[in-house]
Amino acid sequence: MAKDMSNTKVPPTTIARLPIYLRCLQDARGRRVDLISSFELAELTGRNAAQLRKDLSYLGEFGTRGVGYEVDELISQISKWLGTSTVRPVAVVGMGRLGQALCNYQGFLDKGFTITRVYDVDPDKVGKSIAGVEIVHIDKIEKVEPGGIGVIATPAAGAQEAAEKLVAAGFNAILNFAPVNIETGPDICVRHVDFASELQIIGFHLAQKEERFPAPCYDDCCD
Amino acid sequence: MAKDMSNTKVPPTTIARLPIYLRCLQDARGRRVDLISSFELAELTGRNAAQLRKDLSYLGEFGTRGVGYEVDELISQISKWLGTSTVRPVAVVGMGRLGQALCNYQGFLDKGFTITRVYDVDPDKVGKSIAGVEIVHIDKIEKVEPGGIGVIATPAAGAQEAAEKLVAAGFNAILNFAPVNIETGPDICVRHVDFASELQIIGFHLAQKEERFPAPCYDDCCD
Repeated sequence: MAKDMSNTKVPPTTIARLPIYLRCLQDARGRRVDLISSFELAELTGRNAAQLRKDLSYLGEFGTRGVGYEVDELISQISKWLGTSTVRPVAVVGMGRLGQALCNYQGFLDKGFTITRVYDVDPDKVGKSIAGVEIVHIDKIEKVEPGGIGVIATPAAGAQEAAEKLVAAGFNAILNFAPVNIETGPDICVRHVDFASELQIIGFHLAQKEERFPAPCYDDCCD
Repeated sequence: MAKDMSNTKVPPTTIARLPIYLRCLQDARGRRVDLISSFELAELTGRNAAQLRKDLSYLGEFGTRGVGYEVDELISQISKWLGTSTVRPVAVVGMGRLGQALCNYQGFLDKGFTITRVYDVDPDKVGKSIAGVEIVHIDKIEKVEPGGIGVIATPAAGAQEAAEKLVAAGFNAILNFAPVNIETGPDICVRHVDFASELQIIGFHLAQKEERFPAPCYDDCCD
């Protein structure tokens, strides 16, 4: 049913919205909804229906005009695109408060992730368990499991070393929570979540509202 | 010097990159760099120079061809756009591991944010201090300070109530870390950081590399 999209570039803003659509579709399935219109799904996700239809058009030709999307089919297709139709193993480096918060985060497993390994440098932490996983010294990092993702939850000073050890162990996908840029080879996918940057992006929108520097942005940019 | 940009829409992807440029410029200033070329700045930020010049063009006409950008001027202008040229007060609801990690996060103050209030529902936590701020019961939330931002670091089950209490106290900008959508009025700026979604976006890129569902994306989408 899906058309050949192998030459279509998917914009990063579309990719970032796919997890939101998936979450709302899974909620709908939990309420035993089988079919959903683009208007209903747009309403649930806080988007407009035209944008939603355009985003989903990258996945192929879905939905029937006047009827809507089959919830199960759309969940299956978005999961396939997000590479989470199977459960991916995640290794977390850094067992401070943030690392511990991630290990105890309830939302991972049903989104396709399970934390299988955790690392720290602190001899007081090594050997203890968190969320059922034993903390191992970062110097003893094991070879990446197939499809695994590495997460850096260290302080800024330890992030580059953590990245290098993850890459040496074969990880080619890293989510970095440390407030510093890390340098890796060109073939490593690094995504950076910087809490201060998130506040700064909100600050941009607040500055507009306060009319200290009024410049319009797109309606959907406050995501 | 800046031209009138009041009718120019700033794309959300540009807004999201401004904090990255700002961080690299501040690093450069720390190394006593006064002038920087778009190529040098692009290299530091891991972007290409054409995209960087386009992003900065939304802020006005900066830089001199063949010379580069004045670091101080660009820092000042980006800070103004991000609404962080003064320090913004931040209130955090939820003092579990994530809330505590945020309170102890080193990178906020030099990015223009200071956590001035923290809230929780747990009577064992209320009255204690974290990072020098006393934990107050969420039922006693105070009126928002001017320019303040609310942060939700509660479990999913408490997020909607936290949002309503923040809005009732006058907050119109909220950063939500809980793994659930929150509903607010139309004039409230809500930004959602969902750790599972961040992993899913990486999963999208991994799925491409694994050629399980090869579809190209833009070079810069793995940010």
